[in-house]
Amino acid sequence: MEMPEPNPHVMANRDEIIARLETALPDGAVISALEAVRVYECDALSAYRCPPLAVALPGSTEEVAAVLKICHEFGAPVVPRGSGTSLAGGALPTADCVILGVAKMNRVLETDYDNRFIRVETGRTNLSVTGAVEADGFFYAPDPSSQLACAIAGNIAMNSGGAHCLKYGVTTNNLMGVKLVTMAGEVLEIGGPWLDAGGLDLLGVVCGSEGQLGVVTEATLRILAKPEGARPILMGFDESEVAGACVSDIIRAGVLPVAIEFMDRPCIRACEAFAHAGYPDVEALLIVEVEGSEDEIDDQLAKIKEIAARHSPREMRESRSAEESALIWKGRKAAFGAMGQIADYMCLDGTIPVSALPKVLGRIGEMSRSYGLDVANVFHAGDGNMHPLILFDANKPGDLELCEEFGAEVLKLCVEVGGCLTGEHGVGVEKRDLMLHQYDPADLEAQMRVKDAFDPHWLLNPAKVFPIRLTAQRREAA
Amino acid sequence: MEMPEPNPHVMANRDEIIARLETALPDGAVISALEAVRVYECDALSAYRCPPLAVALPGSTEEVAAVLKICHEFGAPVVPRGSGTSLAGGALPTADCVILGVAKMNRVLETDYDNRFIRVETGRTNLSVTGAVEADGFFYAPDPSSQLACAIAGNIAMNSGGAHCLKYGVTTNNLMGVKLVTMAGEVLEIGGPWLDAGGLDLLGVVCGSEGQLGVVTEATLRILAKPEGARPILMGFDESEVAGACVSDIIRAGVLPVAIEFMDRPCIRACEAFAHAGYPDVEALLIVEVEGSEDEIDDQLAKIKEIAARHSPREMRESRSAEESALIWKGRKAAFGAMGQIADYMCLDGTIPVSALPKVLGRIGEMSRSYGLDVANVFHAGDGNMHPLILFDANKPGDLELCEEFGAEVLKLCVEVGGCLTGEHGVGVEKRDLMLHQYDPADLEAQMRVKDAFDPHWLLNPAKVFPIRLTAQRREAA
Repeated sequence: MEMPEPNPHVMANRDEIIARLETALPDGAVISALEAVRVYECDALSAYRCPPLAVALPGSTEEVAAVLKICHEFGAPVVPRGSGTSLAGGALPTADCVILGVAKMNRVLETDYDNRFIRVETGRTNLSVTGAVEADGFFYAPDPSSQLACAIAGNIAMNSGGAHCLKYGVTTNNLMGVKLVTMAGEVLEIGGPWLDAGGLDLLGVVCGSEGQLGVVTEATLRILAKPEGARPILMGFDESEVAGACVSDIIRAGVLPVAIEFMDRPCIRACEAFAHAGYPDVEALLIVEVEGSEDEIDDQLAKIKEIAARHSPREMRESRSAEESALIWKGRKAAFGAMGQIADYMCLDGTIPVSALPKVLGRIGEMSRSYGLDVANVFHAGDGNMHPLILFDANKPGDLELCEEFGAEVLKLCVEVGGCLTGEHGVGVEKRDLMLHQYDPADLEAQMRVKDAFDPHWLLNPAKVFPIRLTAQRREAA
Repeated sequence: MEMPEPNPHVMANRDEIIARLETALPDGAVISALEAVRVYECDALSAYRCPPLAVALPGSTEEVAAVLKICHEFGAPVVPRGSGTSLAGGALPTADCVILGVAKMNRVLETDYDNRFIRVETGRTNLSVTGAVEADGFFYAPDPSSQLACAIAGNIAMNSGGAHCLKYGVTTNNLMGVKLVTMAGEVLEIGGPWLDAGGLDLLGVVCGSEGQLGVVTEATLRILAKPEGARPILMGFDESEVAGACVSDIIRAGVLPVAIEFMDRPCIRACEAFAHAGYPDVEALLIVEVEGSEDEIDDQLAKIKEIAARHSPREMRESRSAEESALIWKGRKAAFGAMGQIADYMCLDGTIPVSALPKVLGRIGEMSRSYGLDVANVFHAGDGNMHPLILFDANKPGDLELCEEFGAEVLKLCVEVGGCLTGEHGVGVEKRDLMLHQYDPADLEAQMRVKDAFDPHWLLNPAKVFPIRLTAQRREAA
């Protein structure tokens, strides 16, 4: 992984930067010993590692601003970090960077049921946002598989999705406002608890910006009333392409389940071994969940079963209890972990038009045979957000590189059929050079001008998102 | 209305600019005779008027780019225009500007039911987007009252809402991608038919940017399957504040009707005289609509009626037929027109937290008495998007100014209770100087830097959105 050369001026001022950070923050909030900063040397894309210059763990927006001002003064790059669960290397350090971790900032600041929002510090984990309101019958919709660990800061940075985003949308559809600290240490209020506001709406461009524009310290999130009930149905098929066609037909018919998840046999087996969810041993499994009152659930499932029947499913089985439903979801959400127990893998994150599912699944199968690397598929099929897991052996020389090449082929295919490089994991370091396949130079230039407007010296989260060559040009010009 | 002085260089080159435009566009696509450009001297905020230098009506993205390049070369300001239905002066010309109207560009480019989107040229009217897909059981959700006339271009510029946006969201929630032409004539592709893409998501900042960043020539829009059925219920109350409290309670309970509309007595009477919708003659009327299957409709209405009963409504009446439902909506959508037959009015567009409705309605009543100007209220209550209509007499000297002062007071009140200046009409010229009440200088500066990134010479839609003094500084610095 090509990373920029450390800035010699920053490296020469290492001790002073650390001393200044220590003065600005409470005791223990700055970590600089090599063995201690190693904890932060990678995120969940652990193939790439680099210990940072230092780690700052501020406890408030004011402290975040202080850290950024000091780094800005020294020209030191800053890598913002939530819980470090990025699968795309979104929080990968550079040797000259200060990691700015928001994990300590996890308080609920305001809960307003009348106007259906919650305001939290962004170090708070995704699941604990729902935790703060569920006793009152509300929930926060986006549900990444890592929701027990991942922070709202990272969810906003990556515009995270999750299984139930088919109905409820991804983070950007549930984010109402943020407090953003710029690299110069300026605190901006963007958006708020309303549908629209005057002027340029910067909220959309901040969401999913992968720490390129600023550090988000507070977020106002839409909360929703919990549905009366929900019920998943398992549908097994003999071929992945047929399951894909079934998904396409459900969406085509205008039925909107809350989730349509897809798993193929390798994933089904790994998850079943882990969670004992009663998954059938088939080539392809769909988990379709609907919600509402009992009547509504029965109505919707009847329509879905009628559509599925046309695709000759091997098995269709509705959940019979809340416990069974919980198990079914436990299995699905553990998929990445369960696969990790079996093999090393690279998790892709392309998004395609739902109607292209059968074709793309077929092509991935062909590529798998030609590369000689197995693929397990598990993904949010309803919105076309694929997660092929390419299995490889990290101890076999050349296997990682082969896997990366295969992955790039798949993502290019996603773009080719009218889709895009990422659905919810972000670009990070992983896909930065593939951005040239997604965007024309003029489109990328427009994005980079917005980056210029927020972070003219290109200090925030370096070497991510934009092609490494373009980033280098921009940093030199700055 | 203070507007910038015409640029003498542009005025001196008037004839050459027009000649160049005429060479670049087909016959008849450039209008420059004074009597003919007068047609474009105002939009629906007709209190302010100024004939433009010329009007260009391109027929394709390439022609739009050609117009922009010529104007860019001469430093001529450009005012993009959809159908000219802006209530905020969003398409008000300056004397030195070229009006760039997209009305000729109204084709459907692609319809994809499998992936639930439609791609259109942005001169197409809102209602005719639904018109293109309704025979196949689909619709486009945002429904401004002006939907018969207003163009998708303007909907995107203003992030338009409508009665049914409570459930379906406003334009930004239904917009998937755009083709945007910058002032320099560069064509950008932003977004596409997916939930998220890599890099900086410029779609959110383009939506609602009021023509400040570029001209949107094509749009990919989410289409939805038509619900099985829908049914409105009329609920009459003796006091506006009580109706407001009822709305707040419905939202608080987590019920999500597709629309909750509010009208007070002056509006009810005007609309009833126009549409004969059978509105009860009460102090405040709510139109609450739910949709789904018959069972779902009955279920939801039962909950809503139970909540409403606690507020002692004078009347509750469900629609008994599709014809009656259509009449009820005809009355509501005609509200602005119907009021216009009775008096001159200024239509405000503040948004407030739903829980603040009773308080704000009470305060507006007090202000009305103290200013001596009547107010009629009609608005999207479910999402707190208010539209107080301040009635005045355009022929009475000083009445317009008094009305503007009153309006500014109301919008400041909206900000004060935690809301914002505009919900769907945009800032335009009308509210530009109130932006300083909504945003801190640093927040506005961040927005203006993004404007710089797209339109460094500040030529696009001049004197709108940002406070006139700040705009002038920016243009001088450019």
